[in-house]
Amino acid sequence: MRKNRSKLLVAQTANRREEFEPLKRYADIYWLEDMDEEERARVLPLIDCVYSHGWPKALDKAKASTMKSLRLYQAGNAGVNGIRFDLLDEKVVVCSNAGSYSDEVAEFAIGLMLAAGKSIVKFDRQLRVGAFAHQRLDDLGRQVAFFSGKTLGIVGYGGIGRSTGRMAKPFGMKILAFGRHPVSDRGVKSLRGRAGLMRLLRESDVVVLAVPLTNATRGLMGSEELAVMRPGSIIVNVARGEVVQKEAIYDHLVKNPGFVYATDVWWPDKQGAESFSPDLPFLELENFIGTPHCSGPSAIITGRVGKGVVENLTRYFKGRPLKNVVDRSEYS
Amino acid sequence: MRKNRSKLLVAQTANRREEFEPLKRYADIYWLEDMDEEERARVLPLIDCVYSHGWPKALDKAKASTMKSLRLYQAGNAGVNGIRFDLLDEKVVVCSNAGSYSDEVAEFAIGLMLAAGKSIVKFDRQLRVGAFAHQRLDDLGRQVAFFSGKTLGIVGYGGIGRSTGRMAKPFGMKILAFGRHPVSDRGVKSLRGRAGLMRLLRESDVVVLAVPLTNATRGLMGSEELAVMRPGSIIVNVARGEVVQKEAIYDHLVKNPGFVYATDVWWPDKQGAESFSPDLPFLELENFIGTPHCSGPSAIITGRVGKGVVENLTRYFKGRPLKNVVDRSEYS
Repeated sequence: MRKNRSKLLVAQTANRREEFEPLKRYADIYWLEDMDEEERARVLPLIDCVYSHGWPKALDKAKASTMKSLRLYQAGNAGVNGIRFDLLDEKVVVCSNAGSYSDEVAEFAIGLMLAAGKSIVKFDRQLRVGAFAHQRLDDLGRQVAFFSGKTLGIVGYGGIGRSTGRMAKPFGMKILAFGRHPVSDRGVKSLRGRAGLMRLLRESDVVVLAVPLTNATRGLMGSEELAVMRPGSIIVNVARGEVVQKEAIYDHLVKNPGFVYATDVWWPDKQGAESFSPDLPFLELENFIGTPHCSGPSAIITGRVGKGVVENLTRYFKGRPLKNVVDRSEYS
Repeated sequence: MRKNRSKLLVAQTANRREEFEPLKRYADIYWLEDMDEEERARVLPLIDCVYSHGWPKALDKAKASTMKSLRLYQAGNAGVNGIRFDLLDEKVVVCSNAGSYSDEVAEFAIGLMLAAGKSIVKFDRQLRVGAFAHQRLDDLGRQVAFFSGKTLGIVGYGGIGRSTGRMAKPFGMKILAFGRHPVSDRGVKSLRGRAGLMRLLRESDVVVLAVPLTNATRGLMGSEELAVMRPGSIIVNVARGEVVQKEAIYDHLVKNPGFVYATDVWWPDKQGAESFSPDLPFLELENFIGTPHCSGPSAIITGRVGKGVVENLTRYFKGRPLKNVVDRSEYS
């Protein structure tokens, strides 16, 4: 247990305030949105831990530099690529909220896989605009993948990746897993290193991207990697837009009409914010499916996001080992 | 083994002819599309078994009445509601091809469930037409269902229903099964009779319709049944359009924007053919998803349809008990 009562700043959240009630036992809670400039100037230097879902705009360089007591920055997000590490003193421990979204995002990944492979999105759209042409049953059948016996390659076998594999098992899919650590889950083939990634891409009918966006994964999927993939395969991206090189995937989709890119995550605009209006016309392609980064937020509603944050902050207040400590060197 | 060599008429098929090769050992095969009128008049009275995928238009009342040797009508379809039983003599045994599509259609049912519950189709459409408005994370999250802990009600627990339940298990869904026969699968609650159906509808977050279209299931889902369902629930129809009353579901969708009807199957037009252009504007509704009866035909490509047909015809030629014998009283 920490000797002094903590001062927690909730900087930005979509959670209900009641979810943080249990923390009042250990900390005084300050809500950034409740404070005027004067109060912020007084309180920020006293804050020892911050919780924020997304980097709070109000926390600019000047303000961040006044937070001399800060020890812990707890993110609400699973991916922490949006954090301004440059504004956080080196002594500040940063924790992600990885794991709180795993099953929700995995369900979504399976949904995108099926929506893409079964042509559900495409056919619904064609029917709505009257563009669906009656066709021979075999021609129709060729546009609907059957996943039994197919190979699912999971790039990034953390919480989301593992859950995705588990949900794909009853379809009778072979599972390949690429990651930094060896995987020993039953029925999962573990692949590592550059050669492992390339083998996964060559052998998979569906590739699910579930890596964090780090220095090592930015631009991971470029033209060289796409070139070895099967012409009729599917990429599902529930990681971050920047894991895939925008121009490379656009060219690949145009040249390979049977290849599908189904993504919940997008590239940043010039201001650095994720944009659902990319500067290449992905949204005009038949072999593209896009959703507005909505695979995770249901975990706010189901309470999993708040639960993960409250549990880890409680560990901090009690002086216990923290979960999801971020290796800052991977992000700067 | 039948004493005389059989005469098989392949009346209509999307299968490759090679798939029927193994049957040449037992039968002379006649392809309806290869024969002119004269040849048809000569051959039809000699035919003892027919294979057809969908009722062949060329087989009108006059022609059917000449088929005095006919003993077996083997359908390529799983659902045999399209067969003109009135044109087949009472002594003709009719077999469906049930089971050959189970896993393919079950995959599709899970795909429709996820596409609906996760708002994948809706969001892709909104993004394409520029109609997606940025929103709070919690508002976004409310439009994305999390299926863990939710209840899946399966109406019709045959091959498709059972496979659907199996594929939904790793999502952590509770499974209710309604059917004529008691179900003893582990983790599946068996419900029967009118009270059982109504309980399933009341308690389910997702209802998958997987019954054959028979006298007993036509119009099964009407306003009374829809009224007991949860406002935010989903119906997935991979059975036949007519299992759901068209006007009732349309009204229900208009009055309950949070309720989704996701269907691969449609109502017939005035000529009795399934029509993807219904006479009510389903295709303008946000809470409707439609695909062009494409969940099954992939089984033509994967070879399962042909395999099922060839296996059952082989049973017939060898005088062994047939599979999927249809109770004709359920259809006339």
